[in-house]
Amino acid sequence: MNVTIRGRPRPYRTVGFDRKCNGVRLIEQRLLPHEFRTVLTPDHTATAAAIRDMIVRGAGAIGATAAYGLAQGVREFRGASLVRFDRHVERVFRTLKEARPTAVDPVNAMVQVRAAMAAGANVPERQALALEAAERFADEDVAHCRAIGEHGAPLIRAGMRVLTHCNAGWLAFVDIGSATAPLYAAQAAGRNFHVFCDETRPRCQGASLTAWELAQQGISHEVIADNAAGHLMQRGEIDLVIVGSDRILGRTGDAANKIGTYTKAVLAKHHGIPFYVAIPLSTIDWDLTRGSDIPIEERSAEEVLGAWGVTARGRREHVRIANPTSGARNPGFDVTPAPLITGIITPAGIFRPGGLWRSRARLGGPIR
Amino acid sequence: MNVTIRGRPRPYRTVGFDRKCNGVRLIEQRLLPHEFRTVLTPDHTATAAAIRDMIVRGAGAIGATAAYGLAQGVREFRGASLVRFDRHVERVFRTLKEARPTAVDPVNAMVQVRAAMAAGANVPERQALALEAAERFADEDVAHCRAIGEHGAPLIRAGMRVLTHCNAGWLAFVDIGSATAPLYAAQAAGRNFHVFCDETRPRCQGASLTAWELAQQGISHEVIADNAAGHLMQRGEIDLVIVGSDRILGRTGDAANKIGTYTKAVLAKHHGIPFYVAIPLSTIDWDLTRGSDIPIEERSAEEVLGAWGVTARGRREHVRIANPTSGARNPGFDVTPAPLITGIITPAGIFRPGGLWRSRARLGGPIR
Repeated sequence: MNVTIRGRPRPYRTVGFDRKCNGVRLIEQRLLPHEFRTVLTPDHTATAAAIRDMIVRGAGAIGATAAYGLAQGVREFRGASLVRFDRHVERVFRTLKEARPTAVDPVNAMVQVRAAMAAGANVPERQALALEAAERFADEDVAHCRAIGEHGAPLIRAGMRVLTHCNAGWLAFVDIGSATAPLYAAQAAGRNFHVFCDETRPRCQGASLTAWELAQQGISHEVIADNAAGHLMQRGEIDLVIVGSDRILGRTGDAANKIGTYTKAVLAKHHGIPFYVAIPLSTIDWDLTRGSDIPIEERSAEEVLGAWGVTARGRREHVRIANPTSGARNPGFDVTPAPLITGIITPAGIFRPGGLWRSRARLGGPIR
Repeated sequence: MNVTIRGRPRPYRTVGFDRKCNGVRLIEQRLLPHEFRTVLTPDHTATAAAIRDMIVRGAGAIGATAAYGLAQGVREFRGASLVRFDRHVERVFRTLKEARPTAVDPVNAMVQVRAAMAAGANVPERQALALEAAERFADEDVAHCRAIGEHGAPLIRAGMRVLTHCNAGWLAFVDIGSATAPLYAAQAAGRNFHVFCDETRPRCQGASLTAWELAQQGISHEVIADNAAGHLMQRGEIDLVIVGSDRILGRTGDAANKIGTYTKAVLAKHHGIPFYVAIPLSTIDWDLTRGSDIPIEERSAEEVLGAWGVTARGRREHVRIANPTSGARNPGFDVTPAPLITGIITPAGIFRPGGLWRSRARLGGPIR
């Protein structure tokens, strides 16, 4: 998507590769929305550090970063011995995997890159195949998001007011994003609409990342406190809700996503407002049978008790908001049961949540 | 309620009067929860400034402050001329009224004080009657809150997990509070329970004021992001919701309160969890006929785009959270329709929202 620098919009991907420097180019997301800066990681350990330290975040984005990081590490190898080369590949793989040990996308991405290398007869061939595979992975991430946009765009009619939660935007993928894809596609089709961004406490990715993205693309939007969505729905000021998901159950259609998503789904149901979840196919979990089986991460209380921001003097600061002697509960995610979901927007089309299992062959699910 | 200073709990009222100094004693609420300090306003203009600058806030608390402020101003008068005295009284009245021009409680309180003075034959008698009336107003505020507590306490059974929103605590009244009154009464009756405080973005009165209050009284509690209540209800971790109200319609039972209250009411209904509103009788509006007629104040976007807190170095700072080029919508209140309200806890007992009008004679409503 575009980033406006000195008044001129320039196209950027969240993750890219510089062949000349053998470096992975990333957007320094921790500085957003207050500063836009890109970084080039000089070697695969720096790329692993960038994943670990959350310079880059979001399922699709860290998957592509790991794929490029593996290709980068593979290209660092000097010599002709395939035995020593394979040992090197495994070390690089492990280093990148351990950067975010619970994430599944980096591993899936790197497995693809490693498998593609097998066709190479010697080190240079394998190095070339690794980078090709990483580029393909990134391009496919973009193609999937573009397809989500094509299927979802007809839902966004001119004049609509759309609510979204957290950030499932291009910053979380290589480009375009999942929940944002229908918005960008509708904009490209020339339709005007307005987006309300839930600020998404406690980490405020809606207020910071999604609002920044939409501002860069010139889409009309406003930030709201998470508390305000119900009131706006009651007054008829929200026509549609689109969110992303961290894991959707292929068997039921239950969707895990950032804390607060479930609340918005209950509100949407209460007001008869359509509630859509937009995902790439890699988000579908074909194994679990019940939404309540999805483990919910309890995150640090400090996130709730304070906030990060920038002071009037431009300094990034963490401030304590809450009473200093009080603790906090901080579930990081919640699960929206399928009956509250109108439809699931995928690169293969829009499905009823209960219809994923029936269409599992088309959606990359188990064949049995 | 108690405030623990140097390890020793000491009883405090939010608003009090010092006869010797002719000063109104207030808790400097803008410093809470990070610092507890009381101030003594030396004259009625300082009292008006304290109301205007929100050293004191909350319907009951500013009502009592205005009542004391009028008595204070009346006692500042030197001379024996009743004509000049009456002119002075009107000036003081106006100064205090203009401190928060849209609030109704200060005016109602001062009308009572002024009416009580009429029985005095000379200046000293009127001065004495004014202070008596102000003291009576404050004592009645406390008595009303205590009665709310007595009626509401049986709802709080041992082991319960109670959700509350914003601050309708003793800091918003002279003592005890409205939504907090049943909690304090249940605690006094020896029952243990746990309170979840919605942080209540954008101004975070739940995280700061309510959490501070509950910590001072030794009530088990945790702060949660406003986003987390739905998830906790879904997991069966909330048994009861109690909130305050800024205005309840006597004809319908619809209740206006801090933004986000309506969302919690919809969630409670969805999960079959009782949802109570606790109010003094002065909160009932007997005139309006529809909840949607209640004007909703649109507050400054800056509240949503940032947050106030204290840095690690102990400095109070405002930080910008949101994208600097984005705007925000900030409705300050919302209206919960009567069908979502289980009961209204008043000093005269608990009523079904639809039952207020039938019981209007007992509730101070119109007699016709």
